[in-house]
Amino acid sequence: MNEFEQEAKKYFSKNVTDRDRAIFEGAITLGAIFHQFIGTPVKNDPKTIEALEKSIELSMSCQPYIEKVDAKIVPSKLKSGEHSYDYSELKGENLVIKVISKYGNVRVHSRMKYIDELDFPLMYIENIEE
Amino acid sequence: MNEFEQEAKKYFSKNVTDRDRAIFEGAITLGAIFHQFIGTPVKNDPKTIEALEKSIELSMSCQPYIEKVDAKIVPSKLKSGEHSYDYSELKGENLVIKVISKYGNVRVHSRMKYIDELDFPLMYIENIEE
Amino acid sequence: MNEFEQEAKKYFSKNVTDRDRAIFEGAITLGAIFHQFIGTPVKNDPKTIEALEKSIELSMSCQPYIEKVDAKIVPSKLKSGEHSYDYSELKGENLVIKVISKYGNVRVHSRMKYIDELDFPLMYIENIEE
Amino acid sequence: MNEFEQEAKKYFSKNVTDRDRAIFEGAITLGAIFHQFIGTPVKNDPKTIEALEKSIELSMSCQPYIEKVDAKIVPSKLKSGEHSYDYSELKGENLVIKVISKYGNVRVHSRMKYIDELDFPLMYIENIEE
Repeated sequence: MNEFEQEAKKYFSKNVTDRDRAIFEGAITLGAIFHQFIGTPVKNDPKTIEALEKSIELSMSCQPYIEKVDAKIVPSKLKSGEHSYDYSELKGENLVIKVISKYGNVRVHSRMKYIDELDFPLMYIENIEE
Repeated sequence: MNEFEQEAKKYFSKNVTDRDRAIFEGAITLGAIFHQFIGTPVKNDPKTIEALEKSIELSMSCQPYIEKVDAKIVPSKLKSGEHSYDYSELKGENLVIKVISKYGNVRVHSRMKYIDELDFPLMYIENIEE
Repeated sequence: MNEFEQEAKKYFSKNVTDRDRAIFEGAITLGAIFHQFIGTPVKNDPKTIEALEKSIELSMSCQPYIEKVDAKIVPSKLKSGEHSYDYSELKGENLVIKVISKYGNVRVHSRMKYIDELDFPLMYIENIEE
Repeated sequence: MNEFEQEAKKYFSKNVTDRDRAIFEGAITLGAIFHQFIGTPVKNDPKTIEALEKSIELSMSCQPYIEKVDAKIVPSKLKSGEHSYDYSELKGENLVIKVISKYGNVRVHSRMKYIDELDFPLMYIENIEE
């Protein structure tokens, strides 16, 4: 842990464990991805979709203690770009995200996907490895 | 816990505790606030600042298991609105956030504030009450 | 026109008229509102809706040559907040915006509203007063 | 002009010219780019920067009557990613945008770049071709 990471750690409550911290950092990134990219124009075109997925993955991997971000834009509900108004704004229902965060020896797999039964883009913890 | 909350819980790993969950939900909201509102035009005017603080607090309190959101916009670095180009885009350095999340019997106090030594708007866990 | 506005004007092409400029400034603000606020959590609750409308109006009125912003969030398609997952992300279909921009003696009324026939939140120029 | 474009045109004031419209559509996209992407995490790393530039260009080219979008992220003020907190949030000062919009026979070149004298990311019309 370098001096900046030491400095940051001082602000956390003393009873925060590595597990707590790994969960915390992964969840921040899920919330961040959703609220940064929702609303972006997108159409059902592989190049546009891939560029957006890649920029989500690379930019959001900059965040602290994020090991990997995987973003998939589900094309099935996207408009196809056949005329000037035939495109979509990216919504929670179009986006599947996996985030792996790691702090100390704990690795957390967090996800977001749209759940039909809830009509909601649910964020959840898929697995905690200690 | 109602049927929707039961349904959501199914997606979480079985070894996720109430503490894990309370941390997770609070952190999502911190990440969400930052990436939703950063970039919003704002000037050093009490009415504009208050309106923005209040909308952050009320909208972000909609998120799951969030008990309270407190948002303060620090006016000292904001431009004052004296001519057409004299306003600021909201940045991490202008924003102080407190989020209280609660799941089961666990209450987590999460915060964001700008830390000079890091030149970074640090998100951290201030306290976990069990 | 003060020195900053003079300075800004230098960057514009010489053949840009006051009418051009009034249209330009109003349209920027329409695009800005949509992409800043889409995705914000919101539920069908008058206090939350009003706070969000007011913050859109006041923050976006900071932009250059904007005389007035009027934002209405249409509650009919918003979830009602009865359980943890019962809220909406603000979408183009929920938002009606009016922007009045003024440059020199030209005043432009720009709008955004969702058009069923287009399934699209259309931005358009309602009136130009010269 | 197809039926959707005809339908959209009905909402515009009758005195709106092709020139007005080309300006309007380009300006929307400038405002949209700024408020969609400001706040995105980024570091001074060519792959991250390129991915973000490309996603801005392709997603924002979906907007109506946009012929071309060119986005450049200026790396000089970006942090370099040497430790967990060593990255930047994308700000107006890091972004240079060119948008070409076309409506009828009118082509408008709009730009955004940070102007030191204004301490402001100025949006302006560089050229109108009729």
